Amino acid sequence: NYSELDEIIIGIVGGDGIGPAITAQAQRILEFLLKDEVEKGKVRFKVIDGLTIENRAKVNKAIPDDVLEELKECHVILKGPTTTPRAGDPWPNIESANVAMRKELDLFANVRPVRVPEQGIDWTFFRENTEGAYVLGSKGFHINEDIAFDFKVMTTQGIERIAKAAFDYARANGKKKVTIVTKANVVKTTDGKFLNICKEVAKDYPEIEVDDWYIDIMTAKLVDEKRRTQFQVIVLPNLYGDILTDEAAEFQGGVGTAGSANIGKRYAMFEAIHGSAPRMVEEGRAKYADPSSIIRAASMLLSHIGYIEESKKLDKAMDICTRTEKKLVITGRDTGATNQEFADYVMETIQSL
Amino acid sequence: NYSELDEIIIGIVGGDGIGPAITAQAQRILEFLLKDEVEKGKVRFKVIDGLTIENRAKVNKAIPDDVLEELKECHVILKGPTTTPRAGDPWPNIESANVAMRKELDLFANVRPVRVPEQGIDWTFFRENTEGAYVLGSKGFHINEDIAFDFKVMTTQGIERIAKAAFDYARANGKKKVTIVTKANVVKTTDGKFLNICKEVAKDYPEIEVDDWYIDIMTAKLVDEKRRTQFQVIVLPNLYGDILTDEAAEFQGGVGTAGSANIGKRYAMFEAIHGSAPRMVEEGRAKYADPSSIIRAASMLLSHIGYIEESKKLDKAMDICTRTEKKLVITGRDTGATNQEFADYVMETIQSL
Ligand SMILES: CC(C)[C@H](C(=O)O)[C@@H](O)C(=O)O
Ligand SMILES: CC(C)[C@H](C(=O)O)[C@@H](O)C(=O)O
Repeated sequence: NYSELDEIIIGIVGGDGIGPAITAQAQRILEFLLKDEVEKGKVRFKVIDGLTIENRAKVNKAIPDDVLEELKECHVILKGPTTTPRAGDPWPNIESANVAMRKELDLFANVRPVRVPEQGIDWTFFRENTEGAYVLGSKGFHINEDIAFDFKVMTTQGIERIAKAAFDYARANGKKKVTIVTKANVVKTTDGKFLNICKEVAKDYPEIEVDDWYIDIMTAKLVDEKRRTQFQVIVLPNLYGDILTDEAAEFQGGVGTAGSANIGKRYAMFEAIHGSAPRMVEEGRAKYADPSSIIRAASMLLSHIGYIEESKKLDKAMDICTRTEKKLVITGRDTGATNQEFADYVMETIQSL
Repeated sequence: NYSELDEIIIGIVGGDGIGPAITAQAQRILEFLLKDEVEKGKVRFKVIDGLTIENRAKVNKAIPDDVLEELKECHVILKGPTTTPRAGDPWPNIESANVAMRKELDLFANVRPVRVPEQGIDWTFFRENTEGAYVLGSKGFHINEDIAFDFKVMTTQGIERIAKAAFDYARANGKKKVTIVTKANVVKTTDGKFLNICKEVAKDYPEIEVDDWYIDIMTAKLVDEKRRTQFQVIVLPNLYGDILTDEAAEFQGGVGTAGSANIGKRYAMFEAIHGSAPRMVEEGRAKYADPSSIIRAASMLLSHIGYIEESKKLDKAMDICTRTEKKLVITGRDTGATNQEFADYVMETIQSL
């Protein structure tokens, strides 16, 4: 409970590529909304610079030790996109910084809302965030040069806590149904365990309807305009969550428009779900990068630490700013308006609410 | 090369649930189109009844030995949907019959075309069909009651042959681009291997452009009406192929409208990609089940064994029969018209072409 803390420390992690530029704008908006709280000493911002691919490559670690220490001094974190090395890149093959942060800070629930009111879409995804295909993601091996192995690992406790988070959310928000998504007909041991434990947990929530689908057919159902509105809360393993939430975000305008909350018992991290777009930086266009996703993440952060009103105002302003013609002018690729101007527009809009 | 065979044996496997009813109609259409060939003794149909969940449960095998022997006597197989046991079902936890057949007959390429001409969609998916998350799908284990493992396995040879199949298809059909889909940023060893080998194979096809995307963002791209028309041939590991082709089929009218080709060096199997719908059978409605998917599979079979003209005619008739008002009458849920009547309509339409 954040209201009981003397001081809430909000870490601001710019990340790579366009990250620092867009994160700075989200920070401006947070500072604007939390001005009084900062003055009272209730909220403090802590800018953490070191989570860049260059620093990570230097120490060959997904998160350098000093950065991890700084992160652990915060209560909540707002994080811009970070670069994940790929085959052929000039960096060592280090793990994704988001994936590492989820593990290091035990951020087990990745919560992603997708809403398109005019189409009746109101989904909240609870993606398990620390296990599955991700837990040993860099530890697969070749048994000889021709045969490669990777692993999927799930634990009883890991599944129980994400299932409870999903059902608790459904109960607290008056949702009538939770949908479990796996591929338990093929990946029998881990996905089968996920499905069974979710169904066990469901028994403590008799008022909530439960159904389950396989991930393949679920991606089809989200496309089906008639049937997709039946879904409310969706709980699913890590990789399926990764896949399905990108598809889902597209109906709302793309991954660039959605924020993502990574929540654990002790820490919580809120991030943009798009990439670091190094090409925009090379071309000198970072200041034109769309900050919508990180601003949405900032709004989730506000709501998480108890500033519900501020979060609502920000969402409302964003709904206006991203849906009017003006948004097209402000963050249009070719107009030359910057993300700083967009943030100004959001703050003006908040003031006019 | 089938034209060199004295006799082509086409196995007809009804499967479970609505399978026998719809498969029988597809067989009628094949017999109609191949009438002369059957009379000449060039083509023979072999009906294989035993691939039912009851028989499989009795011997606790995904495919009973006698059925497997019969399958191996065929050159190509048309297969209806089969039931895969789920937790809570009355059957032992045996593997999916399709998955087992793909392995036993070494059907390494799952080829799924999706076409929506009026939207500019013309995709052909090459899903690797024998490895990945499927090869040890029932062989995961618990290391103690709380920790479960599953495996993903890929081999150099397995990846090379699917990559070659995709690029050969692209070359033979004048396609300009092949897209590789993985999650190599997280599942580094197997997916990384898949990506690298595909890129190696690509070097032998310098006229074909290559790009690659991660599966999460790829599901979003297929939704994006502006960007999805850029895709032509897509090559991907087993489970991602399973997921992405279901989503893709939805744009064409749903999994019920698409057939799937499972192709190996020695055998080939063509199947409906929807389920066995046991509830329709219980309710006495099997005769109303939509046979579109299995008829599309039959058309792929025709084309595969060299009856290109017959396949084209069937596709054309299906385009007509599934897009006119009459289709709604014929296979509508509530109209009471049967799949036998639909098959009649297809054959009449072929005659009128
Ligand atoms: C960048 C990547 C490692 C990450 C993931 O796979 O989780 C991203 O896709 C996401 O969804 O946050
Ligand atoms: C039934 C199931 C085992 C199968 C698969 O996962 O391959 C199906 O979804 C398919 O795509 O043919």
